[in-house]
Amino acid sequence: MSKENKSLKDLQHSIIQFRNERNWQQFHKLKDLLLGLNIEAGELNELFLWKDDKEIESVDKVKTADELADIFIFLTYISEHFNIDLGEAIEKKIEKNAKKYPVDKAFGSNKKYTEL
Amino acid sequence: MSKENKSLKDLQHSIIQFRNERNWQQFHKLKDLLLGLNIEAGELNELFLWKDDKEIESVDKVKTADELADIFIFLTYISEHFNIDLGEAIEKKIEKNAKKYPVDKAFGSNKKYTEL
Amino acid sequence: MSKENKSLKDLQHSIIQFRNERNWQQFHKLKDLLLGLNIEAGELNELFLWKDDKEIESVDKVKTADELADIFIFLTYISEHFNIDLGEAIEKKIEKNAKKYPVDKAFGSNKKYTEL
Amino acid sequence: MSKENKSLKDLQHSIIQFRNERNWQQFHKLKDLLLGLNIEAGELNELFLWKDDKEIESVDKVKTADELADIFIFLTYISEHFNIDLGEAIEKKIEKNAKKYPVDKAFGSNKKYTEL
Repeated sequence: MSKENKSLKDLQHSIIQFRNERNWQQFHKLKDLLLGLNIEAGELNELFLWKDDKEIESVDKVKTADELADIFIFLTYISEHFNIDLGEAIEKKIEKNAKKYPVDKAFGSNKKYTEL
Repeated sequence: MSKENKSLKDLQHSIIQFRNERNWQQFHKLKDLLLGLNIEAGELNELFLWKDDKEIESVDKVKTADELADIFIFLTYISEHFNIDLGEAIEKKIEKNAKKYPVDKAFGSNKKYTEL
Repeated sequence: MSKENKSLKDLQHSIIQFRNERNWQQFHKLKDLLLGLNIEAGELNELFLWKDDKEIESVDKVKTADELADIFIFLTYISEHFNIDLGEAIEKKIEKNAKKYPVDKAFGSNKKYTEL
Repeated sequence: MSKENKSLKDLQHSIIQFRNERNWQQFHKLKDLLLGLNIEAGELNELFLWKDDKEIESVDKVKTADELADIFIFLTYISEHFNIDLGEAIEKKIEKNAKKYPVDKAFGSNKKYTEL
């Protein structure tokens, strides 16, 4: 099994298929999907709370990977709700960010584009 | 430009390249990346606050797409921080969820696997 | 024990005293306090995920109360970090909101003040 | 105006009165209140993103105080929704925490009570 070239769409398709097989669409109201996203972000945060740089690096990578995946799953549900092409959205956002943060102005700066 | 088969890895590579060109790695401490993820989730939430089902559907799709992309960008930064293969993490999480939520027990249920 | 007239300051004082007795200040870096707040908000959200209006009302009130208290505890830690008088902040915010949302314009509207 | 002894209940009463005068109860469905709490937590986070310890201390205190107040406002709305006495909840939570984290075991430790 080569994971190297897995497309975003294929991953999202697997997630939606998993859901539909369980007939969970009925529960997937948008505001619940948003709450779910916040919950998963909180669970990711919790892995690192109070930890210093060294302790952060010894947190179980599998747990971290699982939480990141959970966040992606909710991203997928929300994209699907609005029929948004997430891959396209990401590419367009990178283009927009490139205009907001041109290399010559943004290089090495932690300022927001409104303050550059 | 075909977006159909864009791989997750390629999208993530573009994001990291964008960052490195601006020399922002120095600011990307893990706890800031986590805060960033929470901030973007909050901005996504804000698009839908107080809105009923009908109003939700008339929210600007481009704004929604942008916020989803922002969340993906932070997911990518965090994955990269730990050298986690996000695509692999997603596939493994789907497999784990399939064991936690077998179709015959989870079909049409909104219960947590611990309560099934 | 009368709880009726417990002042905000007294409650906050108890929280800070509890912390200091355990010598936890050393861990209470601001970004951890922010992460903690997000975590607790996520835990509160989780109590209600996927639930409809009727199910929401049968969620264990003690669990809800505990999560609300946890959020208040982190609010207190963050206030204390910056030496902010939370009670005063609340009163000033109500005054500001009264200007942003005058009754005659905001009555019965779910719009942001920028759109009123 | 003495703010020293303002009770939690009085502050909460002012918040609810403000809302009722604007007839906003109709929008205050629980899941929106939860989303609102997440949004405000995100806005608080945003004040400190990418900032180092020194930059954190020069963030505008009034902005920080406003965000803390906004979080308290949503805490109040959620408490009111369930008719929860927040002051009592806080006192009870401190008592529970005292049992979970006895001083002799928890002193100077950043561990969760389950690991003490």
